[in-house]
Amino acid sequence: MSGVKSWKAWIFTLGTEVVSGRVVNTNAAYLGRRLTLLGFNVLGVVSLIDDVNLISEFISYVLASKPDLLVTTGGLGPTYDDVTLEAVAKALRVELRLNEEALKSIKEKYDVLKLPLTPERVKMAYMPEGGEVIPNNVGTAPGCMVRSGETLIISLPGVPRELESMWESYVEPRLRELGVRRVFAERSFTVSGVPESSAAKIVKELLRKYDNAYIKTHPKGHEISAPLLEVYVQVFSDDLSTAEKTADEVLEELKKGLESVGGVIAGSEVR
Amino acid sequence: MSGVKSWKAWIFTLGTEVVSGRVVNTNAAYLGRRLTLLGFNVLGVVSLIDDVNLISEFISYVLASKPDLLVTTGGLGPTYDDVTLEAVAKALRVELRLNEEALKSIKEKYDVLKLPLTPERVKMAYMPEGGEVIPNNVGTAPGCMVRSGETLIISLPGVPRELESMWESYVEPRLRELGVRRVFAERSFTVSGVPESSAAKIVKELLRKYDNAYIKTHPKGHEISAPLLEVYVQVFSDDLSTAEKTADEVLEELKKGLESVGGVIAGSEVR
Repeated sequence: MSGVKSWKAWIFTLGTEVVSGRVVNTNAAYLGRRLTLLGFNVLGVVSLIDDVNLISEFISYVLASKPDLLVTTGGLGPTYDDVTLEAVAKALRVELRLNEEALKSIKEKYDVLKLPLTPERVKMAYMPEGGEVIPNNVGTAPGCMVRSGETLIISLPGVPRELESMWESYVEPRLRELGVRRVFAERSFTVSGVPESSAAKIVKELLRKYDNAYIKTHPKGHEISAPLLEVYVQVFSDDLSTAEKTADEVLEELKKGLESVGGVIAGSEVR
Repeated sequence: MSGVKSWKAWIFTLGTEVVSGRVVNTNAAYLGRRLTLLGFNVLGVVSLIDDVNLISEFISYVLASKPDLLVTTGGLGPTYDDVTLEAVAKALRVELRLNEEALKSIKEKYDVLKLPLTPERVKMAYMPEGGEVIPNNVGTAPGCMVRSGETLIISLPGVPRELESMWESYVEPRLRELGVRRVFAERSFTVSGVPESSAAKIVKELLRKYDNAYIKTHPKGHEISAPLLEVYVQVFSDDLSTAEKTADEVLEELKKGLESVGGVIAGSEVR
């Protein structure tokens, strides 16, 4: 769109507890949102059970499409089922190597409590060949950053507090350095009295007119007896002022269109 | 495990709003949990943007591993970006056909409000060849059930209220008819004072002893300075009484093991 490079990203949220519904996958929402805000085009989120072969196969499958970024969460800890970095190494056909920097940071943390470096603890210092340590200032398991061709692979822990701290203090600044430049403006409002199927035609025409816009309607009420739609507009651009200006234009045309078929605009929000 | 057939399932939660983190994926947690309770072994959850080629490619990739069940949510509505059934048809290399039963149910719903059958509304009645209608008594878009070799593909709307109603009233009874028999018992408790890396060794030994058990530790506190673990035990079996009995055994051994390394059992829950 308008000569802007599209930065493609994938998210892997790993762990049997996510797949079996024991926890709600808030990490996926966090990363999807942060990456979208940064200007990445997130194509998908994959959650897998703690099976090293399954994970490495899926990573290989996604890497074949040459995304710019693949972020994994979960599976970095000391337990037998923490297999993420083993799976990454397998997908990249490289060895897992003891990373001295990682080992040092882990040792320092256990030293404080005079706890020995058991094999389970040392395990957290093994990284795919060529991997760089991502410091974990909240918990114990370090993250890892490794390159595979055009793809940067970033592996972070699954504990949300650790993930978010590492993302904001270390990963996001590094990603900005890559030159991701696309920004977007977003708007949303609620409209009652218009079934989603009536809104569809109006949305379709606007999307044809504005090729850098994303418009989505979320049905909140009942399609026929009490239609209520949350309408969400995103406009992408190289610069924020163009994005904001275009978003306002799209918003006005959209509201006018919905009102012309009997819609009542119920609330508006600029983000 | 003990001659019990493992029923493999995959979940696809489709929609750009899920991938970009605009909504938290509670549908995935709901389906993961319901399927696990039914006795399915859910291997993964895939969320993808509303791109018909991307979705059909991923469905084909997962179908190649011959799972018993593939459930999709989202992308069944009247808008241009509702492409799930088109993607399913493409993956199965069959045509999308107007389903008369689906059309009748959609027409009846709009007739109540004297609304015409626009192309956007008729679109919801197109299903992959061989597809059966799953009635939607809450919303408008019908679900679809279609077979591909050994795999049953079930497509449901993404609106949680509709999904859950259709699941409980129609899908789950049908799945029980397939003969999924594995049941499980679960237990959980909290232990303080044991770092996850110390618990790991105890858990590993128990998993070796009980090959039908699943034990997972979730760190809630800080691994070193204030370790707090939520411990979760699941035991699978053909019959519930064996599962319950074994779960109690595993629970007792696990608690004893954790106490022997200084753990304080802080709370216990039978589910």
